[in-house]
Amino acid sequence: MPSSPIRKLVPFADAAKKRGVKVYHLNIGQPDIPTPQVALDAIKNLSETVIEYTHSAGNESYRKGLAEYYQNLGIDISSSDMIITTGGSEAITIAFGACLNPGEEVIIPEPFYANYNSFAIQTGVEVKPITSSISNDFGLPPIAEFEKLITPKTKGIVICNPNNPTGYLYSEKELETLATIVKKYDLYLFADEVYREFCYDGHSHHSCLSLKGIEQNVVLFDSVSKRYSMCGARVGALISRNRDVITACLKFAQARLCPPALGQIASEAALKTSKEYFDGVYNEYIERRNFMVKALNEMEGVYCPTPKGAFYTVVKLPIDDSDKFAQWLLESFEHKGQTVMVAPATGFYATKGLGKNEVRIAYVLKKEDLKSAMECLAEALKVYPGKTL
Amino acid sequence: MPSSPIRKLVPFADAAKKRGVKVYHLNIGQPDIPTPQVALDAIKNLSETVIEYTHSAGNESYRKGLAEYYQNLGIDISSSDMIITTGGSEAITIAFGACLNPGEEVIIPEPFYANYNSFAIQTGVEVKPITSSISNDFGLPPIAEFEKLITPKTKGIVICNPNNPTGYLYSEKELETLATIVKKYDLYLFADEVYREFCYDGHSHHSCLSLKGIEQNVVLFDSVSKRYSMCGARVGALISRNRDVITACLKFAQARLCPPALGQIASEAALKTSKEYFDGVYNEYIERRNFMVKALNEMEGVYCPTPKGAFYTVVKLPIDDSDKFAQWLLESFEHKGQTVMVAPATGFYATKGLGKNEVRIAYVLKKEDLKSAMECLAEALKVYPGKTL
Repeated sequence: MPSSPIRKLVPFADAAKKRGVKVYHLNIGQPDIPTPQVALDAIKNLSETVIEYTHSAGNESYRKGLAEYYQNLGIDISSSDMIITTGGSEAITIAFGACLNPGEEVIIPEPFYANYNSFAIQTGVEVKPITSSISNDFGLPPIAEFEKLITPKTKGIVICNPNNPTGYLYSEKELETLATIVKKYDLYLFADEVYREFCYDGHSHHSCLSLKGIEQNVVLFDSVSKRYSMCGARVGALISRNRDVITACLKFAQARLCPPALGQIASEAALKTSKEYFDGVYNEYIERRNFMVKALNEMEGVYCPTPKGAFYTVVKLPIDDSDKFAQWLLESFEHKGQTVMVAPATGFYATKGLGKNEVRIAYVLKKEDLKSAMECLAEALKVYPGKTL
Repeated sequence: MPSSPIRKLVPFADAAKKRGVKVYHLNIGQPDIPTPQVALDAIKNLSETVIEYTHSAGNESYRKGLAEYYQNLGIDISSSDMIITTGGSEAITIAFGACLNPGEEVIIPEPFYANYNSFAIQTGVEVKPITSSISNDFGLPPIAEFEKLITPKTKGIVICNPNNPTGYLYSEKELETLATIVKKYDLYLFADEVYREFCYDGHSHHSCLSLKGIEQNVVLFDSVSKRYSMCGARVGALISRNRDVITACLKFAQARLCPPALGQIASEAALKTSKEYFDGVYNEYIERRNFMVKALNEMEGVYCPTPKGAFYTVVKLPIDDSDKFAQWLLESFEHKGQTVMVAPATGFYATKGLGKNEVRIAYVLKKEDLKSAMECLAEALKVYPGKTL
């Protein structure tokens, strides 16, 4: 089991803080946005006197509410097509465990969310990366590249849309390309859509659950973590129209008894979050993103695509080694008593050697902090001993 | 992945309820005891405005509090010896995943908690059962029986103390016997002590963490579920003095990000639960147990050992097949419009054919309901077509 690419830098960040240096955390996906009041209130108004096990698939009232959320998106899903999980993480582990045998393979466009690797290792699944490139703004690789990777052991494709770490939003056409491959080789399409609400510039999100002809192949991962800024609730969902998949996954769900009861209460209430809340979040993120992308692209030798979704970007820097650079930022650099923590992109690639001149930046800081962080980064790139400009 | 031995009866229970029959649930471990007010209040007084990820090993303040709880039991454990998990269930899955390789073996005295099987299957671990017998009130089998099962692939022993499903409380001497084997063969001792607070008749609980000479071998599973009657909080803990074990387990914990934040708030507050609360719970359970054991042993052909811990008993009935009997109770029997649901003991044995004349009964009902349930069971045994008396 590999260490997280981010966590190995934590001791250096702690040391910097001990030296009195302010560290701007651009490395993590913990939003600073408040949790909707309606969710907090549901917790504060708790009426239960015994915090009991819930149904293993989650409270029926919450599942019905979540099904309605999907119906409002134009996606026909019923409460029996889903299992509420302990975060999106558990949805992935259960799906891999229930749908795949050890030694079977899934194809994942890289760079990808590093924990997919951990979930695959836990379940004995082999990850076959297909490289998407910053030179193409991380768009889906051509169909022929996928076909090169397909073997008799290939059982699925994993897609994260909008993408963590790149912020890339897959187009309807790209998803239809994926559907073609999935159908042709009868694969699972594991779709992580936890950033669904974070789409910018008028682009709309196309869910894999809307793809025609592969209804039985799609296994979707959802979560309340980012949608309602309640990462700590640990409430996600596994959604599939494939009855056999739900039956198999439910056995895993039953073994661990149930998802968190208190988190489910908050999540059910959060379904009533107002449009104003989401508008406010949207405005906040788009402002941060626009500021950050502009600031990054003004730095010499830096290229940052404009992410159309999520709240991350993978940016190309004029540096020799992103791991060394991230550590150097924390260990040896400061500007006005401040520095930044970034996630080296190497940790998001399965192919060795890739991501050495890229870092992931999460724009989860308020604009004034983001401004200071960008200033730090600009100054750092001027003096970093391993700069390649 | 096997279906739970209990859950396959749920449709029959649902059908009985639809017919208007009252079903007494003796089959599940969901206590009816209220959660401590101090824990509920902590939730109601939530001050957070963002429900954030916690540390992957759990909030430090909670870990420190839990370490203090152990120190008060006379067990020297620090906050860095533990990882807070999503229920005791996740502690077991993580421990199996981190400590054992697929194909390696653990010995477990049977009957055992059926989900151990599921956790073993998920992690590729082989369960080797060692039979403990109702004729011996489910005491630990002799050391020679353990040694017969040990192969080069044996890496651990799993013990549940007090025991689910038998209610057996292991003596200090039995645990020292286990320690001898663990030391001799350098095995892990995985100790599930989630029922620690439920010990009766003046017997005290001996923790595996107190065993001398195997400090590096013990991996303990804990949970707030039963201690504070908050099963739905999904907060457990994995505890070990072995630094390599904690390091390996932490990688699994990091992949799933963190245990539930709200449950941790409740759990930390619950550490302040008064002695009066536990005294009340003790008095309630001992009264239920005494009533139930007497009622069962008064039925012809029935033998119920007196469980010294937890809130379960495995009881021998004069029946041909406990699976058929449990189904028949729900499908074809009623007494004054009532029936009972029990858990066939077959599901708690890994050895095929065992447990056919035994059922597990959880005494989690208030006494008047337990009285009606025992009446039902007595009447049922008189008319069951497969009775062996």
